[in-house]
Amino acid sequence: MGTRSEGKKEETLNEPIISLSSRKDENFEEWYSEVVVNGEMIEYYDIPGCYVMRPWAISIWEIMKEFFYAEIKKMKIKNCYFPLLVSADFLHKEKDHIKGFAPEVAWVTRSGESELKLPIAIRPTSESVMYPYFSKWIRGHRDLPLQFNQWCNVVRWESRKPTPFIRSCEFLWQEGHTAFATKEEADNEVLDILELYRRIYEEFLAVPVIKGKKTENHKFAGSLYTNTVEAFIPNSGHGLQGATSNCLGQHFARTFEINFENEKGESVNVWQNSWAYTTRTLGLMVMVHGDDKGLVLPPKVASLQAIVIPNVSSFSTNFQAIFDECEAIVKNLTEAGIRADFDLRDNYSYEWKNSHWEMKGVPLRIGIGLEDLANKKVRAVRRDNFEEIDIPMANLVEQVRNLLDHIQQNLFEVAKQKRDSCIRVVHSWEEFDEALNQKKLIFAPWCDDEAVEKDVTNRTNNDAKSLCSPLDQPPIPEGTLCFASGKPATKWTYWGKSF
Amino acid sequence: MGTRSEGKKEETLNEPIISLSSRKDENFEEWYSEVVVNGEMIEYYDIPGCYVMRPWAISIWEIMKEFFYAEIKKMKIKNCYFPLLVSADFLHKEKDHIKGFAPEVAWVTRSGESELKLPIAIRPTSESVMYPYFSKWIRGHRDLPLQFNQWCNVVRWESRKPTPFIRSCEFLWQEGHTAFATKEEADNEVLDILELYRRIYEEFLAVPVIKGKKTENHKFAGSLYTNTVEAFIPNSGHGLQGATSNCLGQHFARTFEINFENEKGESVNVWQNSWAYTTRTLGLMVMVHGDDKGLVLPPKVASLQAIVIPNVSSFSTNFQAIFDECEAIVKNLTEAGIRADFDLRDNYSYEWKNSHWEMKGVPLRIGIGLEDLANKKVRAVRRDNFEEIDIPMANLVEQVRNLLDHIQQNLFEVAKQKRDSCIRVVHSWEEFDEALNQKKLIFAPWCDDEAVEKDVTNRTNNDAKSLCSPLDQPPIPEGTLCFASGKPATKWTYWGKSF
Repeated sequence: MGTRSEGKKEETLNEPIISLSSRKDENFEEWYSEVVVNGEMIEYYDIPGCYVMRPWAISIWEIMKEFFYAEIKKMKIKNCYFPLLVSADFLHKEKDHIKGFAPEVAWVTRSGESELKLPIAIRPTSESVMYPYFSKWIRGHRDLPLQFNQWCNVVRWESRKPTPFIRSCEFLWQEGHTAFATKEEADNEVLDILELYRRIYEEFLAVPVIKGKKTENHKFAGSLYTNTVEAFIPNSGHGLQGATSNCLGQHFARTFEINFENEKGESVNVWQNSWAYTTRTLGLMVMVHGDDKGLVLPPKVASLQAIVIPNVSSFSTNFQAIFDECEAIVKNLTEAGIRADFDLRDNYSYEWKNSHWEMKGVPLRIGIGLEDLANKKVRAVRRDNFEEIDIPMANLVEQVRNLLDHIQQNLFEVAKQKRDSCIRVVHSWEEFDEALNQKKLIFAPWCDDEAVEKDVTNRTNNDAKSLCSPLDQPPIPEGTLCFASGKPATKWTYWGKSF
Repeated sequence: MGTRSEGKKEETLNEPIISLSSRKDENFEEWYSEVVVNGEMIEYYDIPGCYVMRPWAISIWEIMKEFFYAEIKKMKIKNCYFPLLVSADFLHKEKDHIKGFAPEVAWVTRSGESELKLPIAIRPTSESVMYPYFSKWIRGHRDLPLQFNQWCNVVRWESRKPTPFIRSCEFLWQEGHTAFATKEEADNEVLDILELYRRIYEEFLAVPVIKGKKTENHKFAGSLYTNTVEAFIPNSGHGLQGATSNCLGQHFARTFEINFENEKGESVNVWQNSWAYTTRTLGLMVMVHGDDKGLVLPPKVASLQAIVIPNVSSFSTNFQAIFDECEAIVKNLTEAGIRADFDLRDNYSYEWKNSHWEMKGVPLRIGIGLEDLANKKVRAVRRDNFEEIDIPMANLVEQVRNLLDHIQQNLFEVAKQKRDSCIRVVHSWEEFDEALNQKKLIFAPWCDDEAVEKDVTNRTNNDAKSLCSPLDQPPIPEGTLCFASGKPATKWTYWGKSF
């Protein structure tokens, strides 16, 4: 790749074309496992729930990170790094919080051959690691806001079945932890960050999400409230939490004694937020856009936006002119800021290469053969809709750039259309039950009662759960009743299958 | 910072000025602990050997990372991410290698309340995590070179006394892992990476290093040879390994069965390298440049290169004009690409602010008072040599840029001069012993015998060890004898106190 291999013409081109054995519509889970492996994003590992993230995946992660990091820098948020390991004392300080994580915590009890005096946890999240220092650093109102972020790994030992990117024992994330003098500032930041998460999903990954609020049952352990960007997978009927922005209120501040002297000279608790997005983003992108040919990458996050493939074999006598043209095309595209490369490998056929880059989801494949060369054109194939377009060499850069924009746009629109077509408004338990069985994204008026939500989950044998109450609430006409309890409804809420 | 606080004029300015209680020349270890804490790089943590890295430290790490990452991208090296956790089976596969790390490995034995069936290690390094996949991915000569890098954390439970950045239980690093068809390619890459490490130290951190080769006793466990950039701390007389670039030879390839079919159709082992630099870089920078006033940051890595401080208090009636000028100066500097900020806090005095930013090591402090304003100038103070310079406002940007360049250059030159003045060439045991007691960086002809090196360490009660044999070897005149064994010398080698 990106280099020429001198033709060893005697070699065979019989490398078998790799295809997926499962269909996305028929067997979603198997399809997903196959596509992340064959698309070269993931390798399975000998510890369940741990995965190898290959460069094809990490490059996408890094593109999102660059965007997000630049945005939070504008908000004056600073990067730091707190330890991976946390003592039981620290971890157990906040009871509600640790209760949420306790079953998932990995404990280190030995170093070399020696037993540790006390077991030490691997961070499942860093609230209890960081907040003792917040208490130390914050004294007066001028120390506020304190806005920190770190990029790191966390470990949560899941008992549920692991799924690459989506539910794993270790994952990468950013975690933001901030403290403010007033609730208003904290509330505003929760929304600012939520908007960045929406942009990551919608503008970069082309995955439509709903901005909403989690119910009391599903909010972050120890938080005042949890805002979320919620995605939906039409093929499986699952709602998936995309990222959360939590207002912690003053709860942790009381526990960790994070106080400041306000302008009146009184010592008061700070208001805190925490917010995170994880490598789950990558899994959602694959689930939403992938098809039976493999990955489909949105151009904005693809480390390779266009792959140029010579439509001749190196057996043919005229291959050199085509190879030169491939290199010239890539040079042109690269200089115009398009991420492009060529595939001049001589031991793979044109068909094999097309299928290979299709599996890896490259947004645009550009083929060029002897006839194309004569006609001063190339043949482009869009990964999103398989459309083939002849492009005159004269305005190649401009048209490639346009095509990439269209692919990005189209992926989002198609995904949104699919998601929206799954939305079913229900008013009664019967309608709810039917919609759930049809794998719909259910939208229902609800009484906002914790017990009723638990009851819904019980009545569906843990099959259903609330996803979020959208921030943008439609009006609730006088007399509207909760679909589940029959009590007066107070908010519209999304429900779906529980992943 | 960077925002104005509206003057609460009744407040006192009695905040005590923080100074160091230890002197670098008198009590180096205490001085170092104080300076990393008071300079706001580090906070101590309740688990020994773990430290909180504050934004002031992480921002330096990120500047180096940006440079290094751009350089290895040019070499076609790709980022990936392998798991934190590794099974005992994987870890123990390579005997020589694990023997080097076994006493330092942290073991997870419990998740939540459940005992794991088999203990799982936290990576001390990732050779045994990655190489089973190298074996899978590499089949033919066209799969080579395979060049991966990851940015991550590793854990090594040190029995020796921990020191922030320098020797810690968890640290951040990049680890590169590459495979080649030939030894020649591997050898070349070892040197290319070593040159990048030299540039990080010399061009960015202004820390002089010696490029050399480790002895057999000190090479990376399981490697063929280890190249190093070696730094020296004049105040303590310690040599410190700055970063290593290892050629692993074919040793791991045999163990992990990493083979490729060469052009003759034979299955042969690949040649491998691994290389890493860590957050130790930050500690070395502090140790070399810091002084009794606190940190001294080289401009190229300082997240804040110039701090602008109004030389009026907000009690005075004319402060507004000065405050406005401070903001204008920062705007000018920032637009010219200089990392600048102002400190308009009204609850700290001019003296306090000067001392504060001096402690934090900001390369240039720019003060401006009413008289300065009238004379259209500012007063700059260099952190490296305390020189005060009046700069006419008219060519502020140009002069600030020049000053920053000079500071960077001067820090390196002063550090190199200090280091060089510690070098002592010795030819006999008596000279060696004397130089060691004087904390010198000892340069001696040596017989390159492992047993002799162990003997040197024993004879000095573990006080001395070899640092490296410089790649650039002076000639060894006929008849030159080893300083320790009296046998014929074969190479020049640096020795020093063992940290």
